[in-house]
Parts: sequence; structure tokens; C-alpha cells
Amino acid sequence: MDQQRLIEAAWAAADAAAAIVRPFFRTGLRPQDKPDESPVTAADQAAERAIRAALEARFPAIPVLGEEFGGQLPDSGPCWVVDPIDGTRAFLTGRPSFCTLIALLQDGIPVLGLIDQPITSERWLGAEGRPTTYLGALGGRIGGRLDLELAEAELSATSPDQFGGDLAATFARLRGATRRTYFGGDAYCYGLVALGQIDIAVDAGMKPWDWAALVPVVQGAGGAISDFSGRALRAGGDGTVIAAGTRDLHLAALDALRG
Amino acid sequence: MDQQRLIEAAWAAADAAAAIVRPFFRTGLRPQDKPDESPVTAADQAAERAIRAALEARFPAIPVLGEEFGGQLPDSGPCWVVDPIDGTRAFLTGRPSFCTLIALLQDGIPVLGLIDQPITSERWLGAEGRPTTYLGALGGRIGGRLDLELAEAELSATSPDQFGGDLAATFARLRGATRRTYFGGDAYCYGLVALGQIDIAVDAGMKPWDWAALVPVVQGAGGAISDFSGRALRAGGDGTVIAAGTRDLHLAALDALRG
Repeated sequence: MDQQRLIEAAWAAADAAAAIVRPFFRTGLRPQDKPDESPVTAADQAAERAIRAALEARFPAIPVLGEEFGGQLPDSGPCWVVDPIDGTRAFLTGRPSFCTLIALLQDGIPVLGLIDQPITSERWLGAEGRPTTYLGALGGRIGGRLDLELAEAELSATSPDQFGGDLAATFARLRGATRRTYFGGDAYCYGLVALGQIDIAVDAGMKPWDWAALVPVVQGAGGAISDFSGRALRAGGDGTVIAAGTRDLHLAALDALRG
Repeated sequence: MDQQRLIEAAWAAADAAAAIVRPFFRTGLRPQDKPDESPVTAADQAAERAIRAALEARFPAIPVLGEEFGGQLPDSGPCWVVDPIDGTRAFLTGRPSFCTLIALLQDGIPVLGLIDQPITSERWLGAEGRPTTYLGALGGRIGGRLDLELAEAELSATSPDQFGGDLAATFARLRGATRRTYFGGDAYCYGLVALGQIDIAVDAGMKPWDWAALVPVVQGAGGAISDFSGRALRAGGDGTVIAAGTRDLHLAALDALRG
């Protein structure tokens, strides 16, 4: 498939989602709670419909897997994987750090990823074989901090609550080995990893629509991303995610996780 | 003293700080670590100098207490209390949620407070006897959500790490009584309380420059703010802070803290 046409489709889908989401921001929209207690709003659902329409208009044969309306990830071939509002809690509380995520998986491997923040108008695009690009007026340049010791690294996680059971000790080991931890931020933090602002981001309980778009963005910025065991992220994995701004720092962080 | 002239001074000081801070954002500026391990950068120091210059030019007789260069809080009379970059960790990791805080205390009581986010260009101003104003292009209106049950409230805290010792159980009680918790955000969260986006914000270990500006902003929006025992915030207090978008919700949250 033509990579440029795929990028244009993702771009158009993100534009369509942003046009839906922006007017809802800070309007007092209230969520319904899903069976897993995560919140969902009318904005999530309308935005996913707009994303699906934009993608299907351009690539009617490519299936779409989305957080709100589901779908099947095929064993092989291409599949769009989308999350209209990653960080619904941030969205609901007026924080401009939620994101729209649009990814293309090919045979289960993310080959295109777009992270969009529609309120600050920031957009990251990663695509196989190309350097990641950042479009936005808030500043920053693509690329992780080089030659950084793990002990100097800035660590980020959406919430400590994700790391229950055995993961609590694993997360504590990584925290102990790094300089500082800051909580909050969802997918936006992985955009900041690509900008060399956050050095390491970790999360758990991640679904394909949570991590698929992050992979090309981080990799195309010279960074690395995997599960906590160092394996490539895949559907049916354990839901852990660790990304770092450089491959060396990623390896050092994996060592710290293992203890 | 003329309230309007004081407001103009705070406004000019925030403008001066923003002009200093903006060019440093996402430039890879590295911190020195202070004795308490909190980070400080050249931007913090230059911004506090600019704030002091702006305030002292207009009110040479009013002392200034600031996070970076100290000062004495007098027992009576007026005193500016300022934090050039609240949320230095957010600033260092490229998150547009750090804030510049400028407050005026009169006989130890905050009577004017300004919260500024220089990257998103959002500014909250609270002043005794006036409704809080919000200036910014990200949306939102001043005022907490009315008639909200505590069980439906969105809770926010900068980090769970603040709540050690006895506070861990206290914080856990409040979390258990509210709908959801989101971490991160520093003073910006109190601006979101004034907009009715976050319902309750809590922090601990807060110094006067961390909380002074928040008090008039939250109160002027119809909300309430105190320490965890319900006492007015004051220098030499225990450093705990709880704010809510309405006075009723604040009382309900205090009850939950007490257990």
C-alpha cells in the first residue's frame, strides 16, 4: 500500500476527530461508566465514528479496531487501531493532555502511528522507515537525550494504581533506579518521550488501541518501546509498556525492571 | 491600598515571568537539585528576579517572599508571596501544566491570587470581594459543579508520594469516598477546580508560595480551600491543602478525610 496515502488518511481522521472533540472540552460533559469502570462520553463515541468514516472512505477494505466500537484484529494483513480519546479522565477534568490515537498494524506490527492533542494542536506522526515528525506550536524537537545515565532519567507513569500485585515491586525498582517520577499524562507522555522531554514512560493494563500508535512515534524518534520483558508489543500481550528516548536507555531500564 | 493597582502589579509581574519562561520550555534545560531534592533551573531564578523587579517597581514598600530567593513573611501588613515556576518537574518534562503563582497576603491572609500558565496562555485571577476571572482560549467557565455528591466527585492530587505516614490512610479514605483520582498537575489543578472541571484537589507538603495564590482563586469561584483539618491556610501550618469547587463539597470531603 502507498504509505503516503495511508498517512493522509490518518491525518484526515485525526482532523475529523479534533473537530468533534474540541467543542466538548470543558463543557461539563458527564461520562457514563463502562463495565470496567473506565469513563466514556458522547465525545468519545462521536469522535470514533468520525475517525472510522474518514478511514473507511479512503480504505474501505482495511478493517478498523477501536476502543469504543470494537472490531477484530486480523491474524495477517492491515488493520487500523484507534482510540478517539486516550486519557478520558484527563479530558473530563479539563486537562489538555488527552490524545487521539490512530495506528495502522500490518500483520500485527504497528507501521504507522499518529498522536494528536486537539486542544494544544500538537501532532506526532511516526511511520516505518521515516523519522518521526512533530507539528505544534509548544516547542520541542524530535529525539531522546543522548548518553543519559539511568540514574538521571525522568520517569513518567499515568498512575501508580496500574502497578498492582507483582508489578508494584517491579515499578518500585525502576523508580529507585531513576532520578524522579511524575504521574499523569497518558499517551501524551510518549509524545514527550519522542521529544526527549520525558526519558522513560511506563504503563500497564494497556490495550492495542492504547499502545499501537506509540510504537512508530517512539521508534522513529530513535527510541525504543516494548513490554516489561523486552518483547515487541502485540495483541494478547501482558499489557505492560516501557518506552525510552534512546535504545541504550531502554535496555538499562529493562535491566532495572528485572532487578 | 488600591486593589486595582495591586492587580495591575501582579498582572505585569506574571507577564514578565512568562516572557522569561517561555523561551526555556522544551529546550533541554537541565536542573540543579536543591538540598530537598526538588529541582530548580535557571528559568526559575530568572523568572523570580523578573517578578520581584515588576512588583518592587510598583510597590517598593511591600516585601516579597519567593520560592527561589526567600524573604520574611511579616506578622502583619502586606507581603507578596510568589513561585516563579510551580511544578518544576512538569516544566522540565515538557508538560504545559506548570504555573507562575503570585499572591498578596494581608496580615497573613491571601487577598489576591494569580495563577498563570504561560505556554497555553491561561490566567486565573482571584481578589477579595470580586469573582474570580479566567482568561484563556482553552475553554471553561468559572464556578464549581453544583449539587454534586461526594461519590461522584473527580479527585486530583499532584502525586501519591506526598501522602506518607498518617496521611496515607487519610488520603485513601478520601479516594475511597470519591469517584475517580487523577494524578499530576500541581497548581494548574486548582485553576481547574475554579472552572468546575476537577471537583476536589488535595496536596501535602505545601509551602506558602505553593498555596497562597490558590486561595483567592478558589474562593472567588464559589469554592472553599483549607488544610485537612478545615482550618484556613497559614504560614507555619501543616502543609496540607484541600480545595473543592463548592463549599458543600468541601465540607463533605473534610468529613471523608476524618473518617
